[in-house]
Amino acid sequence: MRAAILAVGTELLFGQTINTNAAYLSRELQNIGIDVMYHYTVGDNPKRLKELLNLAYRDVDLVITTGGLGPTQDDLTKEVVCEYFGEPLVEYKDYTKALEEHFKKAGYKWTDNNRKQAYFPLNSTILDNDIGTAPGIYLEKGGKAVATLPGPPREMTRMFQFKLKPILLKDSNDFIYYRILRTFGIGESSLETVLMPLIDKQTDPTIATYAKEGETSIRITSKRKSLEEAKAEVDSMIFKVNQIIGAHVYSYDDESLAEVVGKLLMKKNISIACCESCTGGLLAAALTEIPGISKVFNRGLVTYTYGAKEEELNVRPETLLKFTAESGEVCREMVEGLKEKTNCDFCISITGIAGPEDLSPEKPAGLAYIGIAYNGKTEIIEFKHRNVSRKWNRNYMLLNMLYEIYIRVK
Amino acid sequence: MRAAILAVGTELLFGQTINTNAAYLSRELQNIGIDVMYHYTVGDNPKRLKELLNLAYRDVDLVITTGGLGPTQDDLTKEVVCEYFGEPLVEYKDYTKALEEHFKKAGYKWTDNNRKQAYFPLNSTILDNDIGTAPGIYLEKGGKAVATLPGPPREMTRMFQFKLKPILLKDSNDFIYYRILRTFGIGESSLETVLMPLIDKQTDPTIATYAKEGETSIRITSKRKSLEEAKAEVDSMIFKVNQIIGAHVYSYDDESLAEVVGKLLMKKNISIACCESCTGGLLAAALTEIPGISKVFNRGLVTYTYGAKEEELNVRPETLLKFTAESGEVCREMVEGLKEKTNCDFCISITGIAGPEDLSPEKPAGLAYIGIAYNGKTEIIEFKHRNVSRKWNRNYMLLNMLYEIYIRVK
Repeated sequence: MRAAILAVGTELLFGQTINTNAAYLSRELQNIGIDVMYHYTVGDNPKRLKELLNLAYRDVDLVITTGGLGPTQDDLTKEVVCEYFGEPLVEYKDYTKALEEHFKKAGYKWTDNNRKQAYFPLNSTILDNDIGTAPGIYLEKGGKAVATLPGPPREMTRMFQFKLKPILLKDSNDFIYYRILRTFGIGESSLETVLMPLIDKQTDPTIATYAKEGETSIRITSKRKSLEEAKAEVDSMIFKVNQIIGAHVYSYDDESLAEVVGKLLMKKNISIACCESCTGGLLAAALTEIPGISKVFNRGLVTYTYGAKEEELNVRPETLLKFTAESGEVCREMVEGLKEKTNCDFCISITGIAGPEDLSPEKPAGLAYIGIAYNGKTEIIEFKHRNVSRKWNRNYMLLNMLYEIYIRVK
Repeated sequence: MRAAILAVGTELLFGQTINTNAAYLSRELQNIGIDVMYHYTVGDNPKRLKELLNLAYRDVDLVITTGGLGPTQDDLTKEVVCEYFGEPLVEYKDYTKALEEHFKKAGYKWTDNNRKQAYFPLNSTILDNDIGTAPGIYLEKGGKAVATLPGPPREMTRMFQFKLKPILLKDSNDFIYYRILRTFGIGESSLETVLMPLIDKQTDPTIATYAKEGETSIRITSKRKSLEEAKAEVDSMIFKVNQIIGAHVYSYDDESLAEVVGKLLMKKNISIACCESCTGGLLAAALTEIPGISKVFNRGLVTYTYGAKEEELNVRPETLLKFTAESGEVCREMVEGLKEKTNCDFCISITGIAGPEDLSPEKPAGLAYIGIAYNGKTEIIEFKHRNVSRKWNRNYMLLNMLYEIYIRVK
């Protein structure tokens, strides 16, 4: 099967929004054996949208649209697609009612333009939107298929995974199985270099590496005539990959480092407290994202000022004066103070320079100290990784903290 | 002038690479008065590439390609474009020599396939690549123009800025100006409904609304013969928009709510401390993202457990027992305790149910209490906005806190 992905939205043509949906859907479709031939982006314009549909179906069997499903008058994807297929739109009263309910519950004011989201063609499958108001549709006619998905990535990915993918899988004869390994502490090019002997020899399973900020993922995919066969191929390749870079792998199921750490802490019932300076609460926020974490997460202190460090953590004024807040010495007193205060199993502190400005030539942005009190000993880890972006530095510091927790509690 | 951006590269169709080039070029072209009508992505396939050129020129005057300029055999953009325009490629010997030099200097081994990068059509402008080996071309013929840019963003942006943009500016007669207003507390459909009298009547400036998680943006754009005229049109429309929904607008320059709040606090020198339960550090993390915030941000406490609330904030055990942690009463004691402890100008607390599970029928996920001690008085705000996603609930709680700060300090 061959597909095209058609994004609808003037905001994309203005460059305000980067089209990440196309890449996501491409990866997903590839995984279920559907070849993506084109990405198109067009504005909120019925004529041009219809022309692109015409063009696409000369080459592909399936068009997936993203965007333009909302309640406003420039949201016109569903309308144009149905006109193209010659399928009139009919109001599904139950949907209208459900929408009104949803607005009421959420405390939003109902406006009548929302009604248009409850119109569907009779011969289509409605793709429910569990976390937004605009449902999608899947429509097949004369050997052509179309699916309309919403534009916001969160809604789009969910609708794809739970509503559209099962429909597409029914028509597929191949079974694709893949797993995504997540690694930390090794760059993408190094990863590819060490894995090259495996990558080069393989046509199935395939091995692909992807870099995210500070982390690298490895996707191992197999396409076979049975799911069992594909699974076996992938697992045996994971075994080989592990022999080379196993030390860097922290997840075999595409989990975030925070998720892995949070689950480990809960499973082993290790209570944790953190105090943060440069990351300003990122670690606390990342850990408390995990449902159920209250079982082990005691507290987080964002001690930004000298005064806060002294009052909350008993950091000595003379240590701050002599070494500045961004020092291993202060980092040590922070974590010792936290241990004293909370007596949690795992106490962690961080202080450093988020940037973008350097504090001094000796204290550049990206420099940070992590303090850990765990298992009866206290350790201070210095690390440095300069970037021009404050956001990047802080995120990298967060990952380092999580990784230091991970290697100790795993 | 109307343009299409055509990305060439199978890696894009595999979803391995996200096409950020299209968004970048769109913003840049818009700023110099060139309307972008389409983004296309196609694999390394001559036939499909030529078909897309054909299609594009039915609607636009300029096609900018990205990618496919390298030395390998699947790099074919230049070849296909020149064939389309009927312009044969000729070797520019000076370029071959320069390339060979470059390889020698860089210590790379020269392979003969690199020679193909020194072939250009006679009637084109060569766009030099200062930081890579593949030059681009700009070619005009019969009222159509094409520019080929390299795929790597670093090379592409540089070539665009220094080689292509000056050529395009010579031909431009229009100037585009736009501003993005950010609002909170009003959904996209309500926003459009109240703005409809303005939206309906206008062809320039245009008004478009976009929903992001919990927030809605309004883009106001004008295209005129001078930049001053376009600016004046946009500003006068902002005035009209403000008369209708001014109370909801917190930024006229596409800034995030955290940025706006952080800047206000710094400008007015209002010291702030926060204590968070359900949001677990998100507010502290959002505020500390702002460079320079240490001037006013005193500390953040993530008091997750009962014990932490009691020890850090003096919340009374009997209040916790009687009302549970997720109550207005506890929220009040939290913010009062924080004020007592830090004496900051602005103290804010939050407690609630992040979800995804409800605590009880009376205490559903999404319910939260915000406590504020500011200007001599203490206020408790209850709000509710249920969503199945813990992440969404927490983010929405964060926005609500920021907004409550905003309306008090603005």
